[in-house]
Amino acid sequence: MLRFAVAPSGFKECLDAEAVADGIRTGIRRVVPAAVIDTIPLIDGGEGSARLLARSTHGELVPVTATGPVGEPVESHFALHGDTGFVEMAAAAGLSLVPPGRRDPGATTSRGVGELITAALDAGVKKIVIGCGDSGTCDGGAGALRALGVRVLDADRAEIGDGGAELVRARRLDATGLDPRLSEVELVVAVNPTNVLCGPDGVARRYGPQKGATPERVEQLAAAMQVWAEVLRRHSGTRFTDLPGGGASGGLGAGLAAVLGARLASRFDVFLESSDLDQRLRAADLVITAEGAIDASTALGKIPTEVARRAKRHGKPVIALCGTIGPGADTSYDHGIDAITGILTEPVDLADAITRAPELIADATARTLRMLLVGRTLRAA
Amino acid sequence: MLRFAVAPSGFKECLDAEAVADGIRTGIRRVVPAAVIDTIPLIDGGEGSARLLARSTHGELVPVTATGPVGEPVESHFALHGDTGFVEMAAAAGLSLVPPGRRDPGATTSRGVGELITAALDAGVKKIVIGCGDSGTCDGGAGALRALGVRVLDADRAEIGDGGAELVRARRLDATGLDPRLSEVELVVAVNPTNVLCGPDGVARRYGPQKGATPERVEQLAAAMQVWAEVLRRHSGTRFTDLPGGGASGGLGAGLAAVLGARLASRFDVFLESSDLDQRLRAADLVITAEGAIDASTALGKIPTEVARRAKRHGKPVIALCGTIGPGADTSYDHGIDAITGILTEPVDLADAITRAPELIADATARTLRMLLVGRTLRAA
Repeated sequence: MLRFAVAPSGFKECLDAEAVADGIRTGIRRVVPAAVIDTIPLIDGGEGSARLLARSTHGELVPVTATGPVGEPVESHFALHGDTGFVEMAAAAGLSLVPPGRRDPGATTSRGVGELITAALDAGVKKIVIGCGDSGTCDGGAGALRALGVRVLDADRAEIGDGGAELVRARRLDATGLDPRLSEVELVVAVNPTNVLCGPDGVARRYGPQKGATPERVEQLAAAMQVWAEVLRRHSGTRFTDLPGGGASGGLGAGLAAVLGARLASRFDVFLESSDLDQRLRAADLVITAEGAIDASTALGKIPTEVARRAKRHGKPVIALCGTIGPGADTSYDHGIDAITGILTEPVDLADAITRAPELIADATARTLRMLLVGRTLRAA
Repeated sequence: MLRFAVAPSGFKECLDAEAVADGIRTGIRRVVPAAVIDTIPLIDGGEGSARLLARSTHGELVPVTATGPVGEPVESHFALHGDTGFVEMAAAAGLSLVPPGRRDPGATTSRGVGELITAALDAGVKKIVIGCGDSGTCDGGAGALRALGVRVLDADRAEIGDGGAELVRARRLDATGLDPRLSEVELVVAVNPTNVLCGPDGVARRYGPQKGATPERVEQLAAAMQVWAEVLRRHSGTRFTDLPGGGASGGLGAGLAAVLGARLASRFDVFLESSDLDQRLRAADLVITAEGAIDASTALGKIPTEVARRAKRHGKPVIALCGTIGPGADTSYDHGIDAITGILTEPVDLADAITRAPELIADATARTLRMLLVGRTLRAA
């Protein structure tokens, strides 16, 4: 009897990790009906993570009306499990909440993230995990801090306005009005540690364009982040320009670390280590992971290679299923992935492939299972 | 050490079987450098077969200027190996020799095929194999017969014109002028036995549209084939309306059988059994076959399932690589194919996929080899 650990990421803008895991399970069953299949849909803290986490922990998804990134209210939520609240940054300030015509990370705000944190405090949690990723903002977390009672002041000690571009005028912080309950909870920000606040590879230049910034706006924001880093350094004594993860979600990581004393932790240490993933990978004969695209970026801290790294501790074979196989996909072979397979069967456009993804995933998994079974019949070297 | 038999078809309108086999070999080598790889590019008698056969038999490709399907001369050829000549029907009357604007199987002629047969006779062969497939004609082989000295007469004993539509006027044949050397050679027509001359699934209705016939033209041709079958029956005493393979290449099979006494043989009996394919499949640990598309038609007498059928006589596992995986591909699992894999990696258009085919085939083969090696590590059931 073959035992499978199915530990996929979601396919961005297509299917969440649970739907991907379901498709893979369907495909396995079609070829090996008696297989033991452990599905472990994985999140990275970005869009959709709170919903999936609430389900997978049998927790609660608490609805909250919060200020959206363009200042209008949005129906948001946080996940509650025991005495831990999980705030998904993207649920209140994600790029997908910014209407395409209004995408300007110089103007959008993370204020709603602070409101979600307040809501979690209201629920009486002892620990709050803030998941970064897929943000539509670049305000250094100033919006979230203001929602929590912090005043961001200019040279004339007047409060500055919302949005990242305003931060160029920031000079000091007044945290005397901060919600006192924050000092009694553990705060963890789950970040991609490769994201930094400033410099040539800082958050403004690396992500500004995809959030809708023009080249001029990118440079304005890069300058504003430099000013903001200095304000945070003066407030906390810590240098944030190149702190790993300080640039997470438009600088939210740096802002929450500097003012709330939140701990920045690698998102995979938070989401993969805290689960019983290791134990479940160890129980499998084969690990199947998945992501929308496997390419050169996969080896740089995406779910498939993180899963593979953990599986390899136990000597488990790992295969990765993906929507598209892009340039540099082969680099993931150096990070514990043993084989890759794609789901496409015919020349199609992306929209078509997305619509048919659940069926394509199941079909591709079934084909892959057949290939593995052929391999199993080959005599050893 | 793993031993592979690589026995692909060509990818129609894309790559010949040799190029496909080369791509597969490249992909295997990338993952298993020490593999023993026996490449056996296969033909079905259609377009490109003469060229590949001349190479694979270390024979000769003899150039012949012949009458093309629209009556203009084309640079054609036949393959010569020992005292056997191989005439590829498509090399003188193939659809690709009919300019798109002039595609009308009611008007095109197989005359050039007769000229190639004459050229083979001139070369002193003792056996001529005529490969069908990919024809642009529907003249019942009348053109070929006329080139060989036969007169096709109408009710007034006058010769009719070229093209399938004319056959509705045919009443009898005068074969007194037939090249006398034909009675001294063995003639074999390699056909798809599912092609018949007449009826609802006859050659006019089944292939007329893809050869450029309008719906009206299709019905004219169906009627003409009925008349032609009657003329052939009167001449030979044999009923050709539903003889297996009689409809091959626009009825060329029926014409050559009725008038020249040519034997109609299943193309795979001719091209696969005459080679040492069986022995080479038996020597392999794994057989890799391939075709441009794997779909419901694959199980109905295409190269991959024919290869699989033969490999299964020796209990060999067979995998099929393909450009596209179409509806009904799973039916090939019932015909000896154990697993299927596609070559596409990203949403692309067909033209792009065709341009990149050699690279895509090598890459897909390498990925498949990796998957097989993962399978080999799985404990047996």
